[in-house]
Amino acid sequence: MKSKLPNSGTSIFSVMSQLAVKHQAINLSQGFPNFPVDERLTAITAALCKDNVHQYMPMAGYLPLLQNIASVTQKQYDRLVDPTTIILVTAGATQGIFATIQALVHFDDEVIVIDPSYDCYEPAILLSGGRPIRIALQDDYTVNWKTVEQACSPKTKMLLINNPHNPSGKIFTTHDLEQLELIMEHYPNIILLSDEVYEYITFEQKHLSIHSRPKLLERSVIASSFGKTFHITGWKVGYLIAAEKLINEIKKVHQFTVFSVNSLAQVAISNYLELVDLNEIASFYQKKRDFFRKLISKSRFELLPCEGTYFQVVSYANISNENDVAFCKRLVEEHGVAAIPNSVFYADGKDLKHIRFCFAKTDATLEAAAVKLNLV
Amino acid sequence: MKSKLPNSGTSIFSVMSQLAVKHQAINLSQGFPNFPVDERLTAITAALCKDNVHQYMPMAGYLPLLQNIASVTQKQYDRLVDPTTIILVTAGATQGIFATIQALVHFDDEVIVIDPSYDCYEPAILLSGGRPIRIALQDDYTVNWKTVEQACSPKTKMLLINNPHNPSGKIFTTHDLEQLELIMEHYPNIILLSDEVYEYITFEQKHLSIHSRPKLLERSVIASSFGKTFHITGWKVGYLIAAEKLINEIKKVHQFTVFSVNSLAQVAISNYLELVDLNEIASFYQKKRDFFRKLISKSRFELLPCEGTYFQVVSYANISNENDVAFCKRLVEEHGVAAIPNSVFYADGKDLKHIRFCFAKTDATLEAAAVKLNLV
Ligand SMILES: CSCCC(=O)C(=O)O
Ligand SMILES: CSCCC(=O)C(=O)O
Repeated sequence: MKSKLPNSGTSIFSVMSQLAVKHQAINLSQGFPNFPVDERLTAITAALCKDNVHQYMPMAGYLPLLQNIASVTQKQYDRLVDPTTIILVTAGATQGIFATIQALVHFDDEVIVIDPSYDCYEPAILLSGGRPIRIALQDDYTVNWKTVEQACSPKTKMLLINNPHNPSGKIFTTHDLEQLELIMEHYPNIILLSDEVYEYITFEQKHLSIHSRPKLLERSVIASSFGKTFHITGWKVGYLIAAEKLINEIKKVHQFTVFSVNSLAQVAISNYLELVDLNEIASFYQKKRDFFRKLISKSRFELLPCEGTYFQVVSYANISNENDVAFCKRLVEEHGVAAIPNSVFYADGKDLKHIRFCFAKTDATLEAAAVKLNLV
Repeated sequence: MKSKLPNSGTSIFSVMSQLAVKHQAINLSQGFPNFPVDERLTAITAALCKDNVHQYMPMAGYLPLLQNIASVTQKQYDRLVDPTTIILVTAGATQGIFATIQALVHFDDEVIVIDPSYDCYEPAILLSGGRPIRIALQDDYTVNWKTVEQACSPKTKMLLINNPHNPSGKIFTTHDLEQLELIMEHYPNIILLSDEVYEYITFEQKHLSIHSRPKLLERSVIASSFGKTFHITGWKVGYLIAAEKLINEIKKVHQFTVFSVNSLAQVAISNYLELVDLNEIASFYQKKRDFFRKLISKSRFELLPCEGTYFQVVSYANISNENDVAFCKRLVEEHGVAAIPNSVFYADGKDLKHIRFCFAKTDATLEAAAVKLNLV
């Protein structure tokens, strides 16, 4: 039987989490928090169970949730969004990205993807019949916009960006957005898909969202994730906001992919959005970042900057010459800490001797991990 | 912008449910229960909220849930299933069917679909690059297997069946399964996708599942739905059981479509499966069916047989000559009852003057609907 994804194996996140279990290692690989969820959210959810919240939600989402998403978008980004037309609640941002690509990328269309890139992008493009054109970030994880522009052509259907960027934690500057706008001006048929799932996790610099670039909005799809924002990765609820003509096509695909999203989760998140302060999230994670960096500051790992996300990239070039996959394997087996090798996010397996730790963990977990990392 | 699904509009289920709201009509259209969910299930769910059940589940599903699905499959169908290899928990059966088609149907492959057919089948096939070959059931909703065999050719990649059948409520007989096996023998490359989401809702005759046809198992994908079985359509949890070489490809697509399924729902369903008696579901719905049929037995609608599912098809040929879409529109506007016109499930809009009522409703709702239907 011919495979449609012959080169896709089990995702690196599952592989490393399984290795962590097998070796009873501390799991700083797959990105998920191991501290409790806000009690207000779990109390809301528990109380809702006895209510009538167990049947199909409307295809595009629970109306109060759509309205609350619109409010938040206005508050955070000063963007007015019509809740009933251009928002779509999805089964996680992954499903939103998948539906976007399925809906908008046709056979032989090119999609520009910037490496290191999240592992679901390329398979989604391949399944749609499109062709991923993968361009590497520069070694400091900034975008070389000239290279991006050179990759554009009339065949380019979509440009896929990720900001804040996983795994590097880089966030776009105003200069980046201006360069992006120039390219979009030169190629008026390109659609922008902006994966902003870490939008609320940025530190010294504020996140600059595509939501606040009016010039781009008529050609953009922006993906958000409640899983990341509220530490509920298992709930699988995210959303898209996109230009109406784009989201109408995406809704068609969504309708026949999942039809609608878990009802209890939608109502709970909607109610929770009315009382939570989204701006507390960044300071919460900033403390985690600073704590973790300090803990391993005397280790032999070299800490790269971390501007956003809950990931810390380090270089182990001083420690070993192994490739990063081999190094991560040894790290989990011999040192009891699981991490993600950055090379898996590159089409060409580019190996900068960088690995990624997730610091969305309890202080105790981070401390225990640091003890081990300081011995490497 | 060229649409990949130019002929897909808003699903008939959303359209009719919206019309029901607009006209304050009784909604017997979209298939979802309006009675409370089993209190044991909601209590389990509420109690779980404070636990650590909010992060990513493993891609294929929560292990105890997979094990409980295997137990149930053995008990109901006498089939031994390895929980860790050939079961995949999906975001509703819809997502399972979508992932199956995306994974296994290649460009220009033909997929045989039997009309009336559920509305997500054809778009999923089109998005995969395949070609739906739609064959109508006979007017009594039985399959003409000769016609099916005539439609088969070396280009046929998949045969998609739905048993128990929505909307007709027909269930396959042993004769049907034997005929199916013969066709599968003659065309050894065809994969069978069996949508059995109403497997626990059959009445006088028992459901005959593909699970109990050993000859077919190495070439089959079987879709199940907790939404239907446990009256929790909004939870969006279903599962697939398939031959290992098939499910391995489906898992790849699943991994990049949703990655994993809502964690709280998976744990709750898993615990609930250990105490619920699945054989009570059929008798519960049989009472509903009998109650509803009796209530409208003196109306001008002619009741067709209902062997399974929670749908009752009726003929209105004695009442009006309108096509069924127009009739349903008038029924909701003038008579205050929403139903589904069966013609929307046919490629050619075949109109037998049949419409479908959902009887998964409280007795009070069914009574109120009957009062209106008896006046038509
Ligand atoms: C879907 S599991 C991966 C979680 C994640 O976003 C990451 O680790 O980068
Ligand atoms: C996804 S909404 C449709 C529900 C259903 O299965 C039906 O009404 O047939």
